[in-house]
Amino acid sequence: MTLPAAVLGASGYGGAGLIERLRRHPELTLAAVASRQYLGQSVAAAWPHLAGLVDLRFVDTDDAIAAAEVLFCATPHAATAPLVAAARAAGRQVVDLSADFRLDAETYAAWYGDHPHPELLPDAVYGLPELHRSELAGAAIVASPGCNATAATLALAPLAAAGDLGPLPVVTIVTGVSGAGRALDLGLHHAELDGNARAYKVAGTHRHTAEVEGNLGRVAAQGKDGRTRGPREPVKLAFNPVLVPMARGILATAVARPERGGLSDARLLDLYRDFYAGDALVHVQAELPQTKAVAGADRALVTVRYDDRSGAVVALAAIDNLGKGAAGQAVQGFNVARGLPETLGLRLEGHWP
Amino acid sequence: MTLPAAVLGASGYGGAGLIERLRRHPELTLAAVASRQYLGQSVAAAWPHLAGLVDLRFVDTDDAIAAAEVLFCATPHAATAPLVAAARAAGRQVVDLSADFRLDAETYAAWYGDHPHPELLPDAVYGLPELHRSELAGAAIVASPGCNATAATLALAPLAAAGDLGPLPVVTIVTGVSGAGRALDLGLHHAELDGNARAYKVAGTHRHTAEVEGNLGRVAAQGKDGRTRGPREPVKLAFNPVLVPMARGILATAVARPERGGLSDARLLDLYRDFYAGDALVHVQAELPQTKAVAGADRALVTVRYDDRSGAVVALAAIDNLGKGAAGQAVQGFNVARGLPETLGLRLEGHWP
Amino acid sequence: MTLPAAVLGASGYGGAGLIERLRRHPELTLAAVASRQYLGQSVAAAWPHLAGLVDLRFVDTDDAIAAAEVLFCATPHAATAPLVAAARAAGRQVVDLSADFRLDAETYAAWYGDHPHPELLPDAVYGLPELHRSELAGAAIVASPGCNATAATLALAPLAAAGDLGPLPVVTIVTGVSGAGRALDLGLHHAELDGNARAYKVAGTHRHTAEVEGNLGRVAAQGKDGRTRGPREPVKLAFNPVLVPMARGILATAVARPERGGLSDARLLDLYRDFYAGDALVHVQAELPQTKAVAGADRALVTVRYDDRSGAVVALAAIDNLGKGAAGQAVQGFNVARGLPETLGLRLEGHWP
Amino acid sequence: MTLPAAVLGASGYGGAGLIERLRRHPELTLAAVASRQYLGQSVAAAWPHLAGLVDLRFVDTDDAIAAAEVLFCATPHAATAPLVAAARAAGRQVVDLSADFRLDAETYAAWYGDHPHPELLPDAVYGLPELHRSELAGAAIVASPGCNATAATLALAPLAAAGDLGPLPVVTIVTGVSGAGRALDLGLHHAELDGNARAYKVAGTHRHTAEVEGNLGRVAAQGKDGRTRGPREPVKLAFNPVLVPMARGILATAVARPERGGLSDARLLDLYRDFYAGDALVHVQAELPQTKAVAGADRALVTVRYDDRSGAVVALAAIDNLGKGAAGQAVQGFNVARGLPETLGLRLEGHWP
Repeated sequence: MTLPAAVLGASGYGGAGLIERLRRHPELTLAAVASRQYLGQSVAAAWPHLAGLVDLRFVDTDDAIAAAEVLFCATPHAATAPLVAAARAAGRQVVDLSADFRLDAETYAAWYGDHPHPELLPDAVYGLPELHRSELAGAAIVASPGCNATAATLALAPLAAAGDLGPLPVVTIVTGVSGAGRALDLGLHHAELDGNARAYKVAGTHRHTAEVEGNLGRVAAQGKDGRTRGPREPVKLAFNPVLVPMARGILATAVARPERGGLSDARLLDLYRDFYAGDALVHVQAELPQTKAVAGADRALVTVRYDDRSGAVVALAAIDNLGKGAAGQAVQGFNVARGLPETLGLRLEGHWP
Repeated sequence: MTLPAAVLGASGYGGAGLIERLRRHPELTLAAVASRQYLGQSVAAAWPHLAGLVDLRFVDTDDAIAAAEVLFCATPHAATAPLVAAARAAGRQVVDLSADFRLDAETYAAWYGDHPHPELLPDAVYGLPELHRSELAGAAIVASPGCNATAATLALAPLAAAGDLGPLPVVTIVTGVSGAGRALDLGLHHAELDGNARAYKVAGTHRHTAEVEGNLGRVAAQGKDGRTRGPREPVKLAFNPVLVPMARGILATAVARPERGGLSDARLLDLYRDFYAGDALVHVQAELPQTKAVAGADRALVTVRYDDRSGAVVALAAIDNLGKGAAGQAVQGFNVARGLPETLGLRLEGHWP
Repeated sequence: MTLPAAVLGASGYGGAGLIERLRRHPELTLAAVASRQYLGQSVAAAWPHLAGLVDLRFVDTDDAIAAAEVLFCATPHAATAPLVAAARAAGRQVVDLSADFRLDAETYAAWYGDHPHPELLPDAVYGLPELHRSELAGAAIVASPGCNATAATLALAPLAAAGDLGPLPVVTIVTGVSGAGRALDLGLHHAELDGNARAYKVAGTHRHTAEVEGNLGRVAAQGKDGRTRGPREPVKLAFNPVLVPMARGILATAVARPERGGLSDARLLDLYRDFYAGDALVHVQAELPQTKAVAGADRALVTVRYDDRSGAVVALAAIDNLGKGAAGQAVQGFNVARGLPETLGLRLEGHWP
Repeated sequence: MTLPAAVLGASGYGGAGLIERLRRHPELTLAAVASRQYLGQSVAAAWPHLAGLVDLRFVDTDDAIAAAEVLFCATPHAATAPLVAAARAAGRQVVDLSADFRLDAETYAAWYGDHPHPELLPDAVYGLPELHRSELAGAAIVASPGCNATAATLALAPLAAAGDLGPLPVVTIVTGVSGAGRALDLGLHHAELDGNARAYKVAGTHRHTAEVEGNLGRVAAQGKDGRTRGPREPVKLAFNPVLVPMARGILATAVARPERGGLSDARLLDLYRDFYAGDALVHVQAELPQTKAVAGADRALVTVRYDDRSGAVVALAAIDNLGKGAAGQAVQGFNVARGLPETLGLRLEGHWP
């Protein structure tokens, strides 16, 4: 017997990724898809690649909540918390891809405004399974991480665990455009972005900064398999994203200055391989990662290098922002929360080229 | 018990597509991959997206033939026929993605030069399953079609069957760059092709022309489920390909001028839907197809329109040149030849965006 | 003494191209730019590439008409004719990039609806200078051609003049996205179009069809240097555009079936070279043209091939849709209308890559 | 009377940029172009955008040196120094775009190997005119900067002059593919790079690191208008480049941690505007720069932001790697060296989109 699942926000890119993965998940049945914009229309009206394949029409969120045991929310922050509250009131398990349950109430308030449903925060577990696998078991709300935050955290977590972040790590995110969503915007118009690279939300204004700082601070304090609301060391980050002309993919380039010297590529790779040993969805490699190598895939590629001229460590992570950065990780979090094999419904490899 | 399969030419794009599909095929085991260029190196050396996932090293073709029951050849034309001969001598079944067994000896000679192994031609069945499903059963050599030829044939076959091709149908192929292969060439250098559209091999010089003319001529003579070496009506085609800046995807735009008038979009769509009824990997739709809707997928999207101003029929087909246009169709052909479910190991949908 | 010029619709892509060219035109001064959307804002608010270079703010159309002797209209069809009427009432010369003055009243009505100002049509001359150079002298209204229509016309005009169009020439346009304008649309969102090729307005529904049919019909009837409202032979065209992921550029691939055979590449090239002799902005070459070779440039590259298998002629033209396809041609038309050197303010070459 | 100029390495991308600019330079005549690869062929054989426009054939370097008074070298490092020696022996002025005359002999040896012609180094002036304008007057050899080095230097020079670089500034370069040149390489094949972002030469292995460190060290020691071989303060940099799928453009994102706090966006912008006051080819703006805004143009767009959470300064610079990053800057350097108006032959704006 499979479990009925529904997707809220199913006409956005995160929603598409969820539909793709839930359809092939052996323990789930895609029972409903909700979208205000496409209400009443067929799935193919929103998603040309599913024409003839999915026999569902978009419903409203109430109907979706009624139809499923598990809700995957790919709806905007602030708008999502009330949907989660309704789903929880109906006894549903929730995997939330929005930012609403990723941060504690105080940090949330500093970056997003007052939290709409702080009473639900204790039920939420941050869904980066590599860092919270134990705690995710049985979670009522899985708070799935942001795409940029995932890439940055995976790049730096082993250093954080080793106490080697140094002062103010610098993360530069190179990201494809689907991370900005499907809403129309002149800056995302094809003719404006083709052949164009442009930074956005630089100098501490991107909200994922808080998420990464929290993640790294917790790893620094608790080690690898920590608790979402457990202790954290203070970490500050310089975080700057750059939008480039590709549909999907994130490459995080992180520079840390550990206090201690005497590192080497080999020792750092060992550190990273040890840290991610047993993680099927993080592959540590000596080669520099490329975003195309994970396009359509649900794993991350990570490497690390030492610059002995300057004593800097450069750590790089490549993910598909819609795979390990969104829908893939959400399903991974669900799997872990349910005690299922972690990669059910997921793809370790995409395709090339 | 699964069947051991091997890929020859496994460091080219067709080879990557085959590795991807054979790995997930439930009735096959990827036993060997051959590449002269990467001989002795790990699969990840050629394919970054498979790093850590495939525990094989590239071998030579003899070793690959020895290791497998089924050979998938993604090697260049002319060089492939001898490999097929060797594989057949060893009793292997062959699925050949090159052009070497697609044409009769005379047509082959006109476009490629003398056939290296004409004695094997009678054992080969043209592997466009929608048109040769019956004949493919038990085929010793499946001659998998060319990518451009697949798109053009699927767009026009229903019209051919209805006797409505008219004089000199005109096919324009818009194609992504992976169809030109992985060999280095200034015209395929990123900086040269980005932001660039350019025609190539126009005016009857593209070798797929012969393949499409043969396909349509056979459908016109034999109807849908015909024989590769059976009778065909003479068909001439104007066939012009245009290379555009995308990694994968083919959109065929075909214009035919049927002798009879009085057609309509609806009647043509009915004709196409009837023709492809029961074909899981061809989806006929009213909407204009997009290549992105089949990127990473193994099916074709097809539509047809009537221009009552001019009496022209416009038929369009979108495929992934590496899916339905190459590796996907090769596996489909193998499945049909073996009497397996036709879509085993294949993907009907890719991802969006 | 330079002439003051203004651009209406200056926040669209055609408008940007006009600003770029009028700024460097030695006989013109950019006196005003009009935009409803950016009214009161600086030019840099709309055009990041002009930041710090143009000291103007967007005004309304009345102010622009008052400020200039020559009006360049890059405003939408139907909305433009009233602006032209106002400009003419004020005694201004007009170069109109919209469709409003390209067609006779009857044809306009069939494709766009009733003409808003048919009384102005006699004052308008179709501004494809290669075909109407004599008639353009002194024109009060220059009706600058559509981008797709320019490419298709330039590809086929020499054949039309030679009586060699045959029945139903087939034109396939491969076009970059800026031709669709700057207005937001899901189909033009970067993530939707990157890696995507899709047809639109096929089967006789694209309005440029009428324009090309008229152009070719006039050349067939009048020869090269004809009159916009003079006699034309009936020409029907199958015209199908395909949108591909690049910001700018059009490649037209046109297939004609002349009644007579016995043609050759060399004879056709001679025909084309003779036809365009003396045209600085049309370069006939033996090599297949590429859109990148004219990106940022104001000329067209044209070639022609003969397919002796089928008797078809394949003619190809590459232009920058915003250069020879829009702003460049508008300025060329103005130059000819004023008796100035035809390429003033224009660029024959862009840059590579 | 114009001066005859020649381009060595004229079939590479830097060479194309030089041909484009020299053709429109009012004080220069393009007298010769040299290329080993295209020796004897027409310019159009290498450069499709110049077909029909340049009546020259590629010659060898000796002939080019003989034909011109000024040599522009766009040849590879190490191979260039002997050409410069030959040109100097013939009394020619040289503008060298290679790395051969950018560094002192010791630094050159550390990054490139022993300098082939150290005796010429005293005659060379580093050609970033904004930093060495006085010294460039009359220079016999203008050592034109690297593209990445230009972007990084322009982003950080005002901070360096103010003593605000702090410890180990971190520069991430996002770069289009033409910076990697026209030589064929699998990593630059279109299908491999489309939809792909990948880092290269990270962790202190990119040779431009030394160039930027030298530039910033000199500004820190000498202020804005310094001497190439004058004193410099020690500066170390973490420099990591990322290749993204676009033909041209560089966006440098630089993060510095000044010792002092209390900065603000406004104060930093004032600092930058003061520093670049009078520099026609550097535009300081409040908006985040985009590479498309300088595509085809010869100026840089620069901005700076303060992150008061972390005390970091983020400085960004966008250039066209072939404009201000190569050919444009080379011509600018020539102009300054000759006492000509600094922007002769250059373009302040490109086009949009």
